[in-house]
Amino acid sequence: MLKYESVAQAIRRLIYDTPLQAGDKLPSLATLKVQFQVSKSTLLKALHMLEKEGLLHQAHGSGIYVRNGKRPGYMNLFTSNGFSDDLNDHHITSTVLNCEKIRAPHRVKTHLQLQDEADVYYVKRIRYIDGAILCIETSYFNVDVVPFLDHTLAEGSIFDYIEQQLKIKIGYSDIYFNVDTLDADEANLLKQPTGSPTLRYEQQSYTNTGIPFDDSHIVFNHEHAHFYIPSVK
Amino acid sequence: MLKYESVAQAIRRLIYDTPLQAGDKLPSLATLKVQFQVSKSTLLKALHMLEKEGLLHQAHGSGIYVRNGKRPGYMNLFTSNGFSDDLNDHHITSTVLNCEKIRAPHRVKTHLQLQDEADVYYVKRIRYIDGAILCIETSYFNVDVVPFLDHTLAEGSIFDYIEQQLKIKIGYSDIYFNVDTLDADEANLLKQPTGSPTLRYEQQSYTNTGIPFDDSHIVFNHEHAHFYIPSVK
Repeated sequence: MLKYESVAQAIRRLIYDTPLQAGDKLPSLATLKVQFQVSKSTLLKALHMLEKEGLLHQAHGSGIYVRNGKRPGYMNLFTSNGFSDDLNDHHITSTVLNCEKIRAPHRVKTHLQLQDEADVYYVKRIRYIDGAILCIETSYFNVDVVPFLDHTLAEGSIFDYIEQQLKIKIGYSDIYFNVDTLDADEANLLKQPTGSPTLRYEQQSYTNTGIPFDDSHIVFNHEHAHFYIPSVK
Repeated sequence: MLKYESVAQAIRRLIYDTPLQAGDKLPSLATLKVQFQVSKSTLLKALHMLEKEGLLHQAHGSGIYVRNGKRPGYMNLFTSNGFSDDLNDHHITSTVLNCEKIRAPHRVKTHLQLQDEADVYYVKRIRYIDGAILCIETSYFNVDVVPFLDHTLAEGSIFDYIEQQLKIKIGYSDIYFNVDTLDADEANLLKQPTGSPTLRYEQQSYTNTGIPFDDSHIVFNHEHAHFYIPSVK
Protein backbone atom coordinates (compact mmCIF):
# COMPACT_ATOMS: atom_id res chain seq x y z
CA MET A 1 0.00 0.00 0.00
CA LEU A 2 1.38 3.40 -0.97
CA LYS A 3 1.75 6.08 1.69
CA TYR A 4 -1.19 8.18 0.45
CA GLU A 5 -3.39 5.07 0.35
CA SER A 6 -2.67 4.31 4.01
CA VAL A 7 -3.39 7.95 4.90
CA ALA A 8 -6.70 7.68 2.98
CA GLN A 9 -7.45 4.50 4.93
CA ALA A 10 -6.73 6.30 8.22
CA ILE A 11 -9.10 9.15 7.26
CA ARG A 12 -11.79 6.60 6.31
CA ARG A 13 -11.38 5.06 9.79
CA LEU A 14 -11.59 8.52 11.38
CA ILE A 15 -14.90 9.11 9.58
CA TYR A 16 -16.39 5.72 10.46
CA ASP A 17 -15.08 5.51 14.03
CA THR A 18 -15.95 9.03 15.22
CA PRO A 19 -18.50 8.60 13.47
CA LEU A 20 -18.82 11.65 11.23
CA GLN A 21 -22.05 12.23 9.31
CA ALA A 22 -22.66 13.67 5.85
CA GLY A 23 -22.13 17.42 6.14
CA ASP A 24 -19.82 17.21 9.17
CA LYS A 25 -16.51 19.02 8.87
CA LEU A 26 -13.16 17.24 8.97
CA PRO A 27 -10.22 18.84 10.81
CA SER A 28 -8.27 21.39 8.73
CA LEU A 29 -5.45 20.46 6.35
CA ALA A 30 -2.90 21.76 8.86
CA THR A 31 -4.37 19.65 11.69
CA LEU A 32 -4.57 16.50 9.53
CA LYS A 33 -0.97 17.04 8.41
CA VAL A 34 0.21 17.03 12.03
CA GLN A 35 -2.19 14.25 13.10
CA PHE A 36 -0.99 11.82 10.39
CA GLN A 37 2.60 13.11 10.25
CA VAL A 38 2.64 13.40 6.46
CA SER A 39 3.69 15.90 3.81
CA LYS A 40 1.07 18.22 2.36
CA SER A 41 1.32 16.56 -1.07
CA THR A 42 0.69 13.07 0.36
CA LEU A 43 -2.26 14.40 2.34
CA LEU A 44 -3.73 16.14 -0.72
CA LYS A 45 -3.37 12.94 -2.75
CA ALA A 46 -5.21 10.98 -0.04
CA LEU A 47 -7.99 13.60 0.13
CA HIS A 48 -8.31 13.63 -3.66
CA MET A 49 -8.75 9.83 -3.63
CA LEU A 50 -11.52 10.07 -1.01
CA GLU A 51 -13.11 12.91 -2.97
CA LYS A 52 -13.39 10.71 -6.07
CA GLU A 53 -14.93 7.97 -3.92
CA GLY A 54 -17.55 10.50 -2.77
CA LEU A 55 -16.53 10.25 0.88
CA LEU A 56 -15.65 13.91 1.22
CA HIS A 57 -15.86 17.28 -0.48
CA GLN A 58 -13.22 20.01 -0.32
CA ALA A 59 -14.97 23.38 -0.41
CA HIS A 60 -12.38 25.96 -1.39
CA GLY A 61 -11.79 28.34 1.47
CA SER A 62 -14.43 26.74 3.66
CA GLY A 63 -13.13 23.32 4.69
CA ILE A 64 -13.41 19.60 4.10
CA TYR A 65 -16.87 18.03 4.45
CA VAL A 66 -17.88 14.41 4.89
CA ARG A 67 -20.40 13.07 2.38
CA ASN A 68 -22.47 9.90 2.04
CA GLY A 69 -20.44 8.01 -0.55
CA LYS A 70 -21.85 5.12 -2.51
CA ARG A 71 -24.35 2.64 -1.12
CA PRO A 72 -23.40 -1.05 -1.02
CA GLY A 73 -23.80 -2.68 -4.44
CA TYR A 74 -23.80 0.64 -6.28
CA MET A 75 -21.19 1.39 -8.94
CA ASN A 76 -19.35 4.69 -8.76
CA LEU A 77 -19.43 5.98 -12.34
CA PHE A 78 -17.20 8.94 -11.68
CA THR A 79 -14.08 6.97 -10.90
CA SER A 80 -14.71 3.85 -12.89
CA ASN A 81 -11.92 1.29 -13.15
CA GLY A 82 -14.08 -1.51 -14.37
CA PHE A 83 -16.50 -3.56 -12.30
CA SER A 84 -13.88 -5.77 -10.67
CA ASP A 85 -12.34 -2.76 -8.96
CA ASP A 86 -15.49 -0.76 -8.31
CA LEU A 87 -17.60 -3.61 -6.95
CA ASN A 88 -14.79 -5.05 -4.87
CA ASP A 89 -17.22 -5.84 -2.07
CA HIS A 90 -18.81 -8.30 -4.54
CA HIS A 91 -17.61 -11.29 -6.50
CA ILE A 92 -17.29 -10.41 -10.20
CA THR A 93 -16.81 -13.19 -12.75
CA SER A 94 -17.00 -13.40 -16.53
CA THR A 95 -17.88 -15.82 -19.28
CA VAL A 96 -15.85 -14.96 -22.38
CA LEU A 97 -17.95 -15.34 -25.54
CA ASN A 98 -15.35 -13.92 -27.93
CA CYS A 99 -11.75 -12.80 -27.71
CA GLU A 100 -10.07 -12.29 -31.06
CA LYS A 101 -8.07 -9.84 -33.13
CA ILE A 102 -10.21 -8.31 -35.89
CA ARG A 103 -10.16 -5.43 -38.35
CA ALA A 104 -11.59 -2.40 -36.49
CA PRO A 105 -15.25 -1.66 -37.37
CA HIS A 106 -15.82 1.87 -38.64
CA ARG A 107 -17.31 3.33 -35.46
CA VAL A 108 -14.56 1.82 -33.31
CA LYS A 109 -11.92 3.26 -35.66
CA THR A 110 -13.39 6.71 -35.09
CA HIS A 111 -13.62 6.31 -31.31
CA LEU A 112 -10.09 4.93 -30.99
CA GLN A 113 -8.68 7.35 -33.62
CA LEU A 114 -7.19 4.46 -35.64
CA GLN A 115 -5.83 4.43 -39.18
CA ASP A 116 -7.61 2.52 -41.95
CA GLU A 117 -7.15 -1.25 -41.76
CA ALA A 118 -6.04 -1.12 -38.12
CA ASP A 119 -6.62 -4.20 -35.96
CA VAL A 120 -8.25 -4.27 -32.53
CA TYR A 121 -8.88 -6.93 -29.92
CA TYR A 122 -12.59 -7.67 -29.84
CA VAL A 123 -13.83 -9.09 -26.52
CA LYS A 124 -17.43 -10.02 -25.71
CA ARG A 125 -18.22 -11.14 -22.20
CA ILE A 126 -21.14 -11.89 -19.94
CA ARG A 127 -20.30 -10.52 -16.52
CA TYR A 128 -21.74 -11.76 -13.25
CA ILE A 129 -22.12 -10.15 -9.85
CA ASP A 130 -22.17 -12.73 -7.04
CA GLY A 131 -23.20 -15.32 -9.62
CA ALA A 132 -26.12 -13.29 -11.07
CA ILE A 133 -25.96 -11.92 -14.63
CA LEU A 134 -24.94 -8.25 -14.49
CA CYS A 135 -24.37 -7.27 -18.14
CA ILE A 136 -23.15 -8.03 -21.64
CA GLU A 137 -19.93 -6.16 -22.34
CA THR A 138 -18.48 -5.71 -25.83
CA SER A 139 -15.02 -4.11 -25.92
CA TYR A 140 -12.52 -3.13 -28.56
CA PHE A 141 -8.91 -2.55 -27.53
CA ASN A 142 -6.29 -0.60 -29.47
CA VAL A 143 -3.51 -3.14 -30.22
CA ASP A 144 -0.85 -0.40 -30.03
CA VAL A 145 -1.65 -0.13 -26.31
CA VAL A 146 -2.84 -3.71 -25.69
CA PRO A 147 -0.66 -5.85 -27.99
CA PHE A 148 -1.86 -9.15 -26.52
CA LEU A 149 -5.07 -10.53 -25.03
CA ASP A 150 -6.45 -14.03 -24.73
CA HIS A 151 -9.41 -15.94 -23.29
CA THR A 152 -7.71 -16.53 -19.93
CA LEU A 153 -6.80 -12.85 -19.47
CA ALA A 154 -10.32 -11.83 -20.52
CA GLU A 155 -11.82 -14.01 -17.80
CA GLY A 156 -10.28 -11.67 -15.23
CA SER A 157 -10.08 -7.89 -15.04
CA ILE A 158 -8.63 -6.57 -18.31
CA PHE A 159 -8.02 -3.17 -16.70
CA ASP A 160 -5.95 -4.83 -13.95
CA TYR A 161 -3.95 -6.67 -16.65
CA ILE A 162 -3.35 -3.41 -18.55
CA GLU A 163 -2.18 -1.61 -15.44
CA GLN A 164 -0.26 -4.33 -13.64
CA GLN A 165 1.18 -6.45 -16.46
CA LEU A 166 1.41 -3.93 -19.31
CA LYS A 167 2.35 -1.10 -16.89
CA ILE A 168 0.04 1.35 -18.63
CA LYS A 169 -1.45 4.21 -16.65
CA ILE A 170 -5.17 4.54 -17.22
CA GLY A 171 -6.14 8.22 -17.30
CA TYR A 172 -9.83 8.89 -17.83
CA SER A 173 -13.02 7.74 -19.59
CA ASP A 174 -15.87 9.47 -21.37
CA ILE A 175 -19.13 7.75 -20.42
CA TYR A 176 -22.44 8.11 -22.30
CA PHE A 177 -25.65 6.25 -21.50
CA ASN A 178 -29.35 6.10 -22.03
CA VAL A 179 -32.30 3.91 -21.10
CA ASP A 180 -33.78 1.49 -23.62
CA THR A 181 -35.32 -1.99 -23.93
CA LEU A 182 -33.57 -5.32 -24.65
CA ASP A 183 -33.75 -6.82 -28.14
CA ALA A 184 -34.23 -10.57 -28.53
CA ASP A 185 -30.50 -11.46 -28.70
CA GLU A 186 -29.63 -9.37 -25.66
CA ALA A 187 -32.61 -10.71 -23.73
CA ASN A 188 -31.49 -14.25 -24.53
CA LEU A 189 -27.96 -13.62 -23.20
CA LEU A 190 -29.21 -11.77 -20.11
CA LYS A 191 -31.96 -14.37 -19.50
CA GLN A 192 -34.57 -11.60 -19.35
CA PRO A 193 -37.81 -11.15 -21.31
CA THR A 194 -37.38 -9.30 -24.62
CA GLY A 195 -38.37 -5.66 -24.11
CA SER A 196 -37.12 -5.53 -20.51
CA PRO A 197 -35.75 -2.13 -19.47
CA THR A 198 -31.98 -1.71 -19.69
CA LEU A 199 -29.20 0.84 -19.44
CA ARG A 200 -27.09 1.11 -22.63
CA TYR A 201 -23.70 2.34 -21.65
CA GLU A 202 -20.79 3.43 -23.82
CA GLN A 203 -17.31 4.15 -22.51
CA GLN A 204 -14.15 5.32 -24.25
CA SER A 205 -11.07 5.06 -22.07
CA TYR A 206 -7.79 6.90 -22.48
CA THR A 207 -4.28 6.36 -21.11
CA ASN A 208 -2.76 8.99 -18.87
CA THR A 209 -1.14 10.48 -22.00
CA GLY A 210 -4.36 10.84 -23.98
CA ILE A 211 -4.30 7.66 -26.10
CA PRO A 212 -7.77 6.11 -26.57
CA PHE A 213 -7.31 2.38 -25.89
CA ASP A 214 -10.75 0.92 -25.09
CA ASP A 215 -14.15 1.43 -26.72
CA SER A 216 -16.72 -0.53 -24.69
CA HIS A 217 -20.47 -1.00 -24.95
CA ILE A 218 -22.42 -2.47 -22.07
CA VAL A 219 -26.03 -3.63 -21.83
CA PHE A 220 -27.19 -4.11 -18.26
CA ASN A 221 -29.55 -6.47 -16.53
CA HIS A 222 -31.52 -3.70 -14.79
CA GLU A 223 -32.12 -5.84 -11.71
CA HIS A 224 -28.47 -5.61 -10.72
CA ALA A 225 -27.58 -2.17 -12.10
CA HIS A 226 -27.40 0.52 -9.42
CA PHE A 227 -25.25 3.55 -9.95
CA TYR A 228 -23.76 6.36 -7.92
CA ILE A 229 -22.12 9.66 -8.86
CA PRO A 230 -20.42 12.06 -6.43
CA SER A 231 -21.46 15.20 -8.29
CA VAL A 232 -20.01 18.67 -7.63
CA LYS A 233 -21.12 22.22 -8.38
CA MET B 1 -18.53 37.16 -16.53
CA LEU B 2 -15.83 36.51 -13.93
CA LYS B 3 -12.18 36.56 -14.98
CA TYR B 4 -11.74 32.77 -14.76
CA GLU B 5 -14.91 32.26 -16.81
CA SER B 6 -13.57 34.43 -19.62
CA VAL B 7 -10.24 32.53 -19.48
CA ALA B 8 -12.19 29.24 -19.68
CA GLN B 9 -14.07 30.65 -22.67
CA ALA B 10 -10.76 31.57 -24.36
CA ILE B 11 -9.42 28.03 -23.80
CA ARG B 12 -12.65 26.59 -25.24
CA ARG B 13 -12.13 28.76 -28.32
CA LEU B 14 -8.48 27.63 -28.56
CA ILE B 15 -9.67 23.98 -28.55
CA TYR B 16 -12.42 24.52 -31.14
CA ASP B 17 -10.50 26.89 -33.42
CA THR B 18 -7.17 25.04 -33.63
CA PRO B 19 -9.00 22.50 -33.63
CA LEU B 20 -7.65 20.16 -30.97
CA GLN B 21 -8.89 16.55 -30.85
CA ALA B 22 -9.52 14.26 -27.90
CA GLY B 23 -6.11 13.15 -26.63
CA ASP B 24 -4.25 16.22 -27.95
CA LYS B 25 -2.10 18.08 -25.46
CA LEU B 26 -2.76 21.68 -24.47
CA PRO B 27 0.18 24.07 -23.96
CA SER B 28 1.75 23.88 -20.47
CA LEU B 29 0.44 25.84 -17.48
CA ALA B 30 3.39 28.26 -17.80
CA THR B 31 2.66 28.89 -21.49
CA LEU B 32 -1.08 29.36 -20.91
CA LYS B 33 -0.34 31.76 -18.05
CA VAL B 34 1.72 33.99 -20.37
CA GLN B 35 -0.63 33.56 -23.33
CA PHE B 36 -3.72 34.67 -21.39
CA GLN B 37 -1.88 37.09 -19.05
CA VAL B 38 -3.50 35.71 -15.91
CA SER B 39 -2.48 34.60 -12.44
CA LYS B 40 -1.87 30.94 -11.79
CA SER B 41 -4.90 30.71 -9.49
CA THR B 42 -7.26 32.19 -12.11
CA LEU B 43 -5.86 29.80 -14.73
CA LEU B 44 -6.27 26.79 -12.42
CA LYS B 45 -9.86 27.80 -11.68
CA ALA B 46 -10.59 28.03 -15.42
CA LEU B 47 -8.98 24.62 -16.07
CA HIS B 48 -10.91 23.07 -13.18
CA MET B 49 -14.16 24.37 -14.68
CA LEU B 50 -13.32 22.82 -18.08
CA GLU B 51 -12.29 19.60 -16.35
CA LYS B 52 -15.74 19.30 -14.75
CA GLU B 53 -17.33 19.91 -18.14
CA GLY B 54 -15.26 17.02 -19.52
CA LEU B 55 -13.41 19.21 -22.02
CA LEU B 56 -9.97 18.46 -20.61
CA HIS B 57 -8.05 16.23 -18.23
CA GLN B 58 -5.09 17.30 -16.13
CA ALA B 59 -2.71 14.35 -15.80
CA HIS B 60 -0.43 15.07 -12.85
CA GLY B 61 3.13 15.51 -14.09
CA SER B 62 2.22 14.70 -17.67
CA GLY B 63 0.20 17.61 -19.02
CA ILE B 64 -3.28 18.80 -19.90
CA TYR B 65 -5.22 16.73 -22.43
CA VAL B 66 -8.26 17.60 -24.51
CA ARG B 67 -11.23 15.24 -24.20
CA ASN B 68 -14.54 14.80 -26.02
CA GLY B 69 -16.91 16.43 -23.56
CA LYS B 70 -20.63 15.87 -23.64
CA ARG B 71 -22.60 15.32 -26.81
CA PRO B 72 -25.41 17.78 -27.67
CA GLY B 73 -28.57 17.00 -25.68
CA TYR B 74 -26.70 14.93 -23.09
CA MET B 75 -26.78 15.88 -19.42
CA ASN B 76 -23.50 16.04 -17.55
CA LEU B 77 -24.22 14.22 -14.28
CA PHE B 78 -20.88 15.00 -12.71
CA THR B 79 -21.39 18.73 -12.44
CA SER B 80 -25.14 18.90 -12.19
CA ASN B 81 -26.75 22.26 -11.48
CA GLY B 82 -30.19 21.28 -12.50
CA PHE B 83 -31.47 20.85 -16.04
CA SER B 84 -31.89 24.55 -16.78
CA ASP B 85 -28.17 25.08 -16.38
CA ASP B 86 -26.91 21.82 -17.80
CA LEU B 87 -29.11 21.76 -20.88
CA ASN B 88 -28.62 25.42 -21.65
CA ASP B 89 -28.46 24.67 -25.36
CA HIS B 90 -32.12 23.59 -24.99
CA HIS B 91 -35.32 25.25 -23.84
CA ILE B 92 -36.32 23.89 -20.40
CA THR B 93 -39.80 24.66 -19.07
CA SER B 94 -41.89 23.31 -16.19
CA THR B 95 -45.49 22.72 -15.22
CA VAL B 96 -45.82 23.01 -11.45
CA LEU B 97 -48.22 20.35 -10.10
CA ASN B 98 -47.59 21.11 -6.41
CA CYS B 99 -45.70 23.69 -4.43
CA GLU B 100 -46.52 23.74 -0.73
CA LYS B 101 -45.04 23.65 2.73
CA ILE B 102 -45.64 20.27 4.38
CA ARG B 103 -44.45 18.22 7.34
CA ALA B 104 -41.32 16.32 6.15
CA PRO B 105 -42.02 12.66 5.29
CA HIS B 106 -39.84 10.21 7.21
CA ARG B 107 -37.39 9.40 4.40
CA VAL B 108 -36.93 13.08 3.54
CA LYS B 109 -36.27 13.86 7.21
CA THR B 110 -33.45 11.32 7.18
CA HIS B 111 -31.96 12.56 3.91
CA LEU B 112 -32.10 16.21 4.95
CA GLN B 113 -31.09 15.46 8.57
CA LEU B 114 -34.13 17.28 9.95
CA GLN B 115 -35.59 17.24 13.45
CA ASP B 116 -38.98 15.67 14.15
CA GLU B 117 -41.93 17.77 12.95
CA ALA B 118 -39.75 19.86 10.64
CA ASP B 119 -41.38 21.44 7.60
CA VAL B 120 -40.14 21.27 4.01
CA TYR B 121 -41.21 22.79 0.72
CA TYR B 122 -42.68 20.03 -1.44
CA VAL B 123 -42.51 20.73 -5.18
CA LYS B 124 -43.73 18.41 -7.91
CA ARG B 125 -43.10 19.41 -11.51
CA ILE B 126 -43.31 18.05 -15.02
CA ARG B 127 -40.28 19.29 -16.88
CA TYR B 128 -40.04 19.74 -20.63
CA ILE B 129 -37.10 19.89 -23.00
CA ASP B 130 -37.87 21.89 -26.15
CA GLY B 131 -41.55 21.30 -25.46
CA ALA B 132 -41.26 17.48 -25.06
CA ILE B 133 -41.86 15.83 -21.67
CA LEU B 134 -38.48 15.12 -20.05
CA CYS B 135 -39.33 13.95 -16.51
CA ILE B 136 -41.42 14.13 -13.35
CA GLU B 137 -39.44 15.76 -10.57
CA THR B 138 -40.44 15.61 -6.90
CA SER B 139 -38.33 17.76 -4.59
CA TYR B 140 -38.22 18.53 -0.89
CA PHE B 141 -36.38 21.64 0.25
CA ASN B 142 -35.07 22.33 3.76
CA VAL B 143 -36.91 25.49 4.90
CA ASP B 144 -33.90 26.58 6.98
CA VAL B 145 -32.02 27.06 3.70
CA VAL B 146 -34.98 27.84 1.41
CA PRO B 147 -37.39 29.80 3.63
CA PHE B 148 -39.70 30.75 0.76
CA LEU B 149 -40.88 29.16 -2.49
CA ASP B 150 -43.98 29.65 -4.60
CA HIS B 151 -45.57 28.49 -7.85
CA THR B 152 -43.99 31.28 -9.89
CA LEU B 153 -40.48 30.59 -8.60
CA ALA B 154 -40.97 26.85 -9.14
CA GLU B 155 -41.81 27.47 -12.80
CA GLY B 156 -38.21 28.59 -13.32
CA SER B 157 -34.90 27.17 -12.11
CA ILE B 158 -35.09 26.72 -8.32
CA PHE B 159 -31.29 26.27 -8.19
CA ASP B 160 -30.82 29.66 -9.89
CA TYR B 161 -33.22 31.22 -7.36
CA ILE B 162 -31.30 29.65 -4.46
CA GLU B 163 -27.96 30.88 -5.77
CA GLN B 164 -28.89 34.28 -7.15
CA GLN B 165 -31.72 35.45 -4.89
CA LEU B 166 -30.99 33.60 -1.66
CA LYS B 167 -27.20 33.96 -2.18
CA ILE B 168 -26.57 30.38 -1.11
CA LYS B 169 -23.55 28.58 -2.50
CA ILE B 170 -24.44 25.12 -3.78
CA GLY B 171 -21.64 22.68 -2.99
CA TYR B 172 -22.22 19.13 -4.16
CA SER B 173 -24.81 16.39 -4.71
CA ASP B 174 -24.94 12.65 -4.12
CA ILE B 175 -26.68 10.99 -7.07
CA TYR B 176 -28.10 7.44 -7.09
CA PHE B 177 -30.01 5.86 -9.94
CA ASN B 178 -31.30 2.66 -11.40
CA VAL B 179 -33.36 1.45 -14.33
CA ASP B 180 -36.98 0.43 -13.86
CA THR B 181 -40.41 0.58 -15.53
CA LEU B 182 -43.13 3.23 -15.20
CA ASP B 183 -46.15 2.58 -13.01
CA ALA B 184 -49.61 3.69 -14.19
CA ASP B 185 -49.53 7.12 -12.49
CA GLU B 186 -46.08 7.97 -13.79
CA ALA B 187 -46.94 6.71 -17.28
CA ASN B 188 -50.02 8.92 -17.26
CA LEU B 189 -48.02 12.04 -16.37
CA LEU B 190 -45.23 11.23 -18.85
CA LYS B 191 -47.75 10.28 -21.57
CA GLN B 192 -45.98 6.94 -22.07
CA PRO B 193 -47.35 3.39 -21.94
CA THR B 194 -47.35 1.82 -18.46
CA GLY B 195 -44.29 -0.41 -18.14
CA SER B 196 -42.09 1.77 -20.36
CA PRO B 197 -38.42 1.77 -19.37
CA THR B 198 -37.27 4.65 -17.19
CA LEU B 199 -34.37 5.94 -15.16
CA ARG B 200 -35.21 6.48 -11.47
CA TYR B 201 -32.90 9.13 -10.16
CA GLU B 202 -32.38 10.35 -6.61
CA GLN B 203 -30.29 13.37 -5.69
CA GLN B 204 -29.42 14.93 -2.34
CA SER B 205 -27.82 18.34 -2.64
CA TYR B 206 -25.69 20.15 -0.07
CA THR B 207 -24.64 23.76 0.37
CA ASN B 208 -20.97 24.63 0.22
CA THR B 209 -20.87 24.29 4.00
CA GLY B 210 -22.34 20.78 4.11
CA ILE B 211 -26.02 21.51 4.81
CA PRO B 212 -28.39 19.14 2.94
CA PHE B 213 -31.05 21.38 1.39
CA ASP B 214 -32.70 19.40 -1.44
CA ASP B 215 -33.89 15.80 -1.66
CA SER B 216 -35.12 15.18 -5.22
CA HIS B 217 -36.55 12.18 -7.02
CA ILE B 218 -36.81 12.17 -10.79
CA VAL B 219 -38.52 9.74 -13.15
CA PHE B 220 -37.43 10.18 -16.77
CA ASN B 221 -39.11 9.80 -20.12
CA HIS B 222 -36.39 7.54 -21.56
CA GLU B 223 -36.77 9.00 -25.04
CA HIS B 224 -35.22 12.28 -23.95
CA ALA B 225 -32.84 11.06 -21.26
CA HIS B 226 -29.21 10.93 -22.41
CA PHE B 227 -26.43 11.23 -19.90
CA TYR B 228 -22.72 11.91 -19.84
CA ILE B 229 -20.05 11.53 -17.17
CA PRO B 230 -16.43 12.72 -17.47
CA SER B 231 -14.98 9.84 -15.45
CA VAL B 232 -11.41 9.77 -14.10
CA LYS B 233 -9.09 7.04 -12.86
